[in-house]
Amino acid sequence: MQYVKNYIEENKDRFLSELFELIRIPSISSKTEHKADLLAAAEQWKKIILSAGADKAEVIATDGNPVVYGEKLIDPTKPTVLVYAHYDVMPVDPLNLWISQPFEPEVRDGKIFARGADDDKGQSFMHAKAFELMVKTNTLPCNVKFMIEGEEEIGSPSLAKFCETYKEMLKADIILVSDTGMIAPDVPSITSGLRGLAYMEIEVTGPNRDLHSGLFGGAVANPANVIAKLIASLHDENNKVTIPGFYDDVIIISEAERKEMSKAPFNLDNYKKSIGINEVLGENGYSTMERTGIRPTLDVNGIWGGYTEEGSKTVIPSKASAKISMRLVPNQDYHKIAELFTKHFQNITPPYVQVKVTELHGGHAYVSPTDMTAYMAAEKAYTETFGKKPVPVRSGGSIPIISTFEKILGIKSILMGFGLESDAIHSPNENFPLFNFYKGIETIPYFYKYYTEMMA
Amino acid sequence: MQYVKNYIEENKDRFLSELFELIRIPSISSKTEHKADLLAAAEQWKKIILSAGADKAEVIATDGNPVVYGEKLIDPTKPTVLVYAHYDVMPVDPLNLWISQPFEPEVRDGKIFARGADDDKGQSFMHAKAFELMVKTNTLPCNVKFMIEGEEEIGSPSLAKFCETYKEMLKADIILVSDTGMIAPDVPSITSGLRGLAYMEIEVTGPNRDLHSGLFGGAVANPANVIAKLIASLHDENNKVTIPGFYDDVIIISEAERKEMSKAPFNLDNYKKSIGINEVLGENGYSTMERTGIRPTLDVNGIWGGYTEEGSKTVIPSKASAKISMRLVPNQDYHKIAELFTKHFQNITPPYVQVKVTELHGGHAYVSPTDMTAYMAAEKAYTETFGKKPVPVRSGGSIPIISTFEKILGIKSILMGFGLESDAIHSPNENFPLFNFYKGIETIPYFYKYYTEMMA
Repeated sequence: MQYVKNYIEENKDRFLSELFELIRIPSISSKTEHKADLLAAAEQWKKIILSAGADKAEVIATDGNPVVYGEKLIDPTKPTVLVYAHYDVMPVDPLNLWISQPFEPEVRDGKIFARGADDDKGQSFMHAKAFELMVKTNTLPCNVKFMIEGEEEIGSPSLAKFCETYKEMLKADIILVSDTGMIAPDVPSITSGLRGLAYMEIEVTGPNRDLHSGLFGGAVANPANVIAKLIASLHDENNKVTIPGFYDDVIIISEAERKEMSKAPFNLDNYKKSIGINEVLGENGYSTMERTGIRPTLDVNGIWGGYTEEGSKTVIPSKASAKISMRLVPNQDYHKIAELFTKHFQNITPPYVQVKVTELHGGHAYVSPTDMTAYMAAEKAYTETFGKKPVPVRSGGSIPIISTFEKILGIKSILMGFGLESDAIHSPNENFPLFNFYKGIETIPYFYKYYTEMMA
Repeated sequence: MQYVKNYIEENKDRFLSELFELIRIPSISSKTEHKADLLAAAEQWKKIILSAGADKAEVIATDGNPVVYGEKLIDPTKPTVLVYAHYDVMPVDPLNLWISQPFEPEVRDGKIFARGADDDKGQSFMHAKAFELMVKTNTLPCNVKFMIEGEEEIGSPSLAKFCETYKEMLKADIILVSDTGMIAPDVPSITSGLRGLAYMEIEVTGPNRDLHSGLFGGAVANPANVIAKLIASLHDENNKVTIPGFYDDVIIISEAERKEMSKAPFNLDNYKKSIGINEVLGENGYSTMERTGIRPTLDVNGIWGGYTEEGSKTVIPSKASAKISMRLVPNQDYHKIAELFTKHFQNITPPYVQVKVTELHGGHAYVSPTDMTAYMAAEKAYTETFGKKPVPVRSGGSIPIISTFEKILGIKSILMGFGLESDAIHSPNENFPLFNFYKGIETIPYFYKYYTEMMA
């Protein structure tokens, strides 16, 4: 399949400049002021799909941001691959930590630096270009559909309804997703499991206004101190989450399975060095890989209250708030976890403050069996282009919609992620190595080929 | 002394419009962008003092914001009163909670609403107008000096050096200050003690960048969770501060003295209602009045870290910070307390994060003996204008520079505050009742009269 390499080599600069066009649109889904940018990104995707060779592509309205749908149906007797991706991105703050502007992509040290460079504009664009490659070289072996949404980073609130409505149109044999990572450039891996998510916000209110800390300090419960105490109480001395019932539905993984998983290459010193910490911290009795792969967790994603600017202000804040999310494992229901969380806060709220709990978003965990056809086809494709068999990995991240696809559409997903841990997705200086970008475009046509052959 | 009432009645509208001119200058000392406003406020004070009848007034440069000095020396054999006040104000955030704009003063329900309406533009302006009254009615009984600084709300960093430099010029028998409150409009009180202050900032750093909470959550210490745990650990189950040595220098107040102090009128239900809380919280074994009057405390004044905007972001923040201040009582040295705080954080910092501790500002506590001449003169003045004897009160607030005056200049201060708890100083909708404003102007000339007579 030398034509794959040739096509990429001949078109690599154009691929990059087309990707940059998409990246330059600041399609941040969590900020209402970016509505127009989200629409612009959707329109851009329509063009991308059409110019790559689709028979049709359209921007379909939803209750939230639109979904871009496209298709090329070549033969009803052949299998259909549904490519899922998202055109929305995470916010960019703190902006001052970016070396180059987040929406002005720049290549440095062989990497594309920009918000969305990896997650998910860079990764999704590989599919557009692999599709183009197959169409232009007359090697597309099966039917292809695209479903590119604009609300993944805020929990895909409109996509379940979209899937219900367009169930017939979305019919496919497998959903193909590149929104995860691999262990290292020379250690290919396939994500065989994803954690779920329950994302909450709490607001602690004490006095009806900010108070002078001199006049009231020591006599009145301070919401900022109270929220600290409440948050601290959410983990016990073994770093287990203290919410009653939190672990009830967690499936205990057998010692044998844990032993098998522990064979994945992992170097704790490199891990610590890569993120600049001296010691790791997590649930007692589990390894670092297990803590992010098979165990549910609870983290504060944001906390604020009182005076947070330059200098000092002697105030007792009226309110203090925190965003707290829980990563869930298969069999944990995120609705139930959100309910347990809310109930727990009702129980631990002391009489001198009020606590309001809001559920921001959530999603179920997902498992991708390593013995399904799509997994085996992907394994063969990676082996072809990387020269070694990929490792199955349980990832800590969530793509909540994946489990919804299975429920509503009855279709399994295969997660062929080409990102690296060092890509700093969701962080300042997000990046995506050119090596991974082009390697992804090269690997995808092999997947289509082997998958079609195996399904025959 | 009917002329006092007459003069106020004839000039009350002008007094108000002149005060409003001063209030309109947004002289926020904690924000560097307000430098020009601080200079404008100082120049305005120079005009105020001169037009009130001073022999001279000048704006004197310091290492920080300038000090306005003015004087009228009528007779070297008479005592000298040094009026101390400040022209800087607190920040105004959260701005959305203000009913009218903070720097556009407005009278509603008999109260002036504006930042600085009470603290300290309203209260200091009473002295300018009482001084004018005495000059214009030829009743000024002694020498007067003014020292109006622009850094009180940030801990008066330049004033100690100013006092050293101008020690001779500042010579006086008593320092007169209106920057505190009284119990109620019909319960006059004089502040006989002020708490000290040590104001710190802590910054907890974990990973070298914000991390994706899915990929890293559960395996890496989260600075936002860690800061919550650290803050929670600063109070024990009896709400005592856990920093070793924190209470070492606190003078134990005798049961007899506590009994005497408990006679001050205080209604816990009204207190709770006024600030909208169901329960108070404070150090076990002490009453609410004692908790703010005679006991040191620790409060979080601000906390922040991670994603704090609209919606959700699944991030483990690299850093989380908090501003933490401690109110101190007489005999506690704020330098020592800041050191104990810093040392304590060095001891409790876990190996998986780094903690940086910064001392923002501080000041010692102060006691004003009820048997000194100035106290007795003030007591007589209040009795004259309010029709009842004022109550001595230990206030929880700090005016750190007061103890510095005693140390450097060797002069005691008398704290004739006319503010009310409901004035919401440092908060949105700060206000100052017109009743208190005019009652202050009326009471001050009596103080000058009785003080001069008693010193004769």
